[in-house]
Amino acid sequence: MSEPIRVGVLGARGRMGQQACRAVDAADDLELVAMVDAGDWLFSVADAGSQVLVDFTHPDVVMDNIRFAIDQGIHAVVGTTGFTAERLDTVRTWLADAPQVGVLVAPNFGIGAVLSMRFAQLAARFYDTAEVIELHHPHKADAPSGTAVRTAELIAAARREAGMGAVPDATTQARDGARGADVDGVHVHALRVAGMVAHQEVVLGAEGETLTIRHDSLDRVSFMPGVLLGVREIARRPGLTVGLEALLDL
Amino acid sequence: MSEPIRVGVLGARGRMGQQACRAVDAADDLELVAMVDAGDWLFSVADAGSQVLVDFTHPDVVMDNIRFAIDQGIHAVVGTTGFTAERLDTVRTWLADAPQVGVLVAPNFGIGAVLSMRFAQLAARFYDTAEVIELHHPHKADAPSGTAVRTAELIAAARREAGMGAVPDATTQARDGARGADVDGVHVHALRVAGMVAHQEVVLGAEGETLTIRHDSLDRVSFMPGVLLGVREIARRPGLTVGLEALLDL
Amino acid sequence: MSEPIRVGVLGARGRMGQQACRAVDAADDLELVAMVDAGDWLFSVADAGSQVLVDFTHPDVVMDNIRFAIDQGIHAVVGTTGFTAERLDTVRTWLADAPQVGVLVAPNFGIGAVLSMRFAQLAARFYDTAEVIELHHPHKADAPSGTAVRTAELIAAARREAGMGAVPDATTQARDGARGADVDGVHVHALRVAGMVAHQEVVLGAEGETLTIRHDSLDRVSFMPGVLLGVREIARRPGLTVGLEALLDL
Amino acid sequence: MSEPIRVGVLGARGRMGQQACRAVDAADDLELVAMVDAGDWLFSVADAGSQVLVDFTHPDVVMDNIRFAIDQGIHAVVGTTGFTAERLDTVRTWLADAPQVGVLVAPNFGIGAVLSMRFAQLAARFYDTAEVIELHHPHKADAPSGTAVRTAELIAAARREAGMGAVPDATTQARDGARGADVDGVHVHALRVAGMVAHQEVVLGAEGETLTIRHDSLDRVSFMPGVLLGVREIARRPGLTVGLEALLDL
Repeated sequence: MSEPIRVGVLGARGRMGQQACRAVDAADDLELVAMVDAGDWLFSVADAGSQVLVDFTHPDVVMDNIRFAIDQGIHAVVGTTGFTAERLDTVRTWLADAPQVGVLVAPNFGIGAVLSMRFAQLAARFYDTAEVIELHHPHKADAPSGTAVRTAELIAAARREAGMGAVPDATTQARDGARGADVDGVHVHALRVAGMVAHQEVVLGAEGETLTIRHDSLDRVSFMPGVLLGVREIARRPGLTVGLEALLDL
Repeated sequence: MSEPIRVGVLGARGRMGQQACRAVDAADDLELVAMVDAGDWLFSVADAGSQVLVDFTHPDVVMDNIRFAIDQGIHAVVGTTGFTAERLDTVRTWLADAPQVGVLVAPNFGIGAVLSMRFAQLAARFYDTAEVIELHHPHKADAPSGTAVRTAELIAAARREAGMGAVPDATTQARDGARGADVDGVHVHALRVAGMVAHQEVVLGAEGETLTIRHDSLDRVSFMPGVLLGVREIARRPGLTVGLEALLDL
Repeated sequence: MSEPIRVGVLGARGRMGQQACRAVDAADDLELVAMVDAGDWLFSVADAGSQVLVDFTHPDVVMDNIRFAIDQGIHAVVGTTGFTAERLDTVRTWLADAPQVGVLVAPNFGIGAVLSMRFAQLAARFYDTAEVIELHHPHKADAPSGTAVRTAELIAAARREAGMGAVPDATTQARDGARGADVDGVHVHALRVAGMVAHQEVVLGAEGETLTIRHDSLDRVSFMPGVLLGVREIARRPGLTVGLEALLDL
Repeated sequence: MSEPIRVGVLGARGRMGQQACRAVDAADDLELVAMVDAGDWLFSVADAGSQVLVDFTHPDVVMDNIRFAIDQGIHAVVGTTGFTAERLDTVRTWLADAPQVGVLVAPNFGIGAVLSMRFAQLAARFYDTAEVIELHHPHKADAPSGTAVRTAELIAAARREAGMGAVPDATTQARDGARGADVDGVHVHALRVAGMVAHQEVVLGAEGETLTIRHDSLDRVSFMPGVLLGVREIARRPGLTVGLEALLDL
């Protein structure tokens, strides 16, 4: 067996960061060499010989962290949110001068969520209709969920590329909101259900058959296989990679 | 075995009427003695010795048909739509003079739909949240379906009776329509899916658990067991019975 | 508001007992006055003035606990397993001499599980076929689950009472086990799925329609509303009550 | 718009053949030029100038039909069952001498079924456990369905390729059949439900999340988009193509 990959975690005391530390620690092929959070000395990550840095921090500091990693020649796996096209371009510019470094920025490390979106996108052009249902706990502030909106956008794009028109819909009398939110022409429905965590269903229909892709996420721990996959793969993928899907070889 | 019950069908050439004729004909304990439609001689139903009349006609003529049945001492099982509280009161007045005659007026003969609604109503007070999803073919004009609206109303009433307040919902940022239609405080979501027929899901949630009651209706033939149940039971239930649920002994 | 009910918990350091203590403590109308576990002085429950005792202990000691409660005139809500018909008869004999005391013995305090079973039982006679799927985490030792077996037995009994014969099944070529376990003629299928907790689906079918009752239990906390319901109701129900369903007024 | 493709249908009076004729006839870019069944003159297909032949006949005659098509330089889309590796090899031999002719042999023209299988196969390596549920009408003779067996085999192969071991399963006490049929280590459960047609669910589980891929097939018409896709694509794919999935560009 080869040497374990040396991993430093930024945001190590946050909810995702703690999980990431635990997951790295439990993996035989990875070694947790640094745990850093706000107030800690960032350079200790480099001092500890980290080869890959995992970042679950905050939009305010994540860019500095990435800059630091690239300067130090450390690969980065970034789950912090708030990336705009501008931020991604900045990262690309920085990476141009460090051609051996890889950075993965992923808005969602849930492999199931990523697979769901990908399958919905692949299947969309074979079905006349497509709608998205998302079900979350009642403490969620936004509706629909970001994942549901993204899924609908991907379906809508796949339909456009295939030259498909609007979904058929003969509704003439509707109560307000009955048909859900319209995201690029794809209807999205958000339920808030006590006892649930994070669930999504894509319902595709054609004459005589339907296809349903359902993802149930019950625990934050479900994001860790995706994080570990990123840690293991990023050294082999110099430059910027956006989204976990690029690593799934679908 | 006792004598078969003699049954006449009004609206016999319509879609539901045809199914009803076939179902009565196939039942060993029932005998189809008259099939009448617009333009036929209504009295032939009485002449043929009908003991029970099944009515799948039209709101414009159904009241005349019921009046006729009561006058003739024939029980009636009515699936025609368009009954208001006023119409039901009129039928009750007529029945006051014919204490031996039974009339069943049912907006929905699907036993599964009726069970779904009843179960949702019974379960509602044990769950913090309740929402309704209905899925129909894309040719449907109204959204949500009448059954979904009725289900939501029943849930809302059960919550009120149990002294429950509004469902918890922390949504602060929502796209238009994302949270569905609000029916007495219960959110209802309508999907239009090619390949589907008529489906409904009631999703109830409490801390740590959820209960889902799903009904899938694929064919109009599914209404026939409810119609036959009405035909078999109505002679034993003089007066007006509204809704199939009264016959299900739940 | 009336005085809170004074509650003592036996097995207070066990997994269910801890949850019960927490739930009683959090309820405004209940007061947690005693927490007892193996090695503690049982009489402290009485000394503390407990009006209702909650027992999540062990089959070896539960009968002694119930005897003690009855002798002290304390009502008991018992979730400990291992009750046979003989044990229940013994409890009944003891209660004959304490006509004011109520004892609830419930194998399952999940309201959703109890509702599922009840709804399956009520619906069974309207459907030609009925099967049960249960899905649990892969650490479970028995298959199918006790709840699934009980559900199938209830369905089978309901079918018998309604004079229904065997379910239709034209299978002539089957791989071993494909059609599941046969519980009184009802087929039961057990899945073991990583990431799942405890889930059950009853699938009922008739010509042209199906009815599915699904229960998802994600956390032990879901049993607590049933325990609290027992605590609140048992004083009003002298004698032995078996099963939570008796308290649900279905 | 280019010239429509000229299509001949063999087995034109069978259930699938009739649907195929109707579907070809309804498509603007296809022209139905010959309908042939047992007793008809096979050469009329060639005489009518068929460019593609659709075969829904019988295992006894399908090889002769394919031979004929290849000899005539007509492409073939074959849905007839009963193809063994030997038969496929024979077709390959014949095609060696007709390098411009394409033959598609597909055991399943349901795009949804093919997508389900493909998605299950792609996702399998990311999940610790995988099981298959299939639900069919109670008139079905075999259990599990051929599609379910094939799906399980594909999942098992994907797990093997990824170096995964047996699925975790702590079951020590099981009723006979409770855990379903074992297909290459993947458990498959077959339900027979009145009112259902042909349905399949693949349930994948990992720590903290599950992914479910469900396909509902309600009508034979759902196979037609797959047949038409084959007709449109086969001219561009000389040689033998096995399975519709090759044409879906997944």
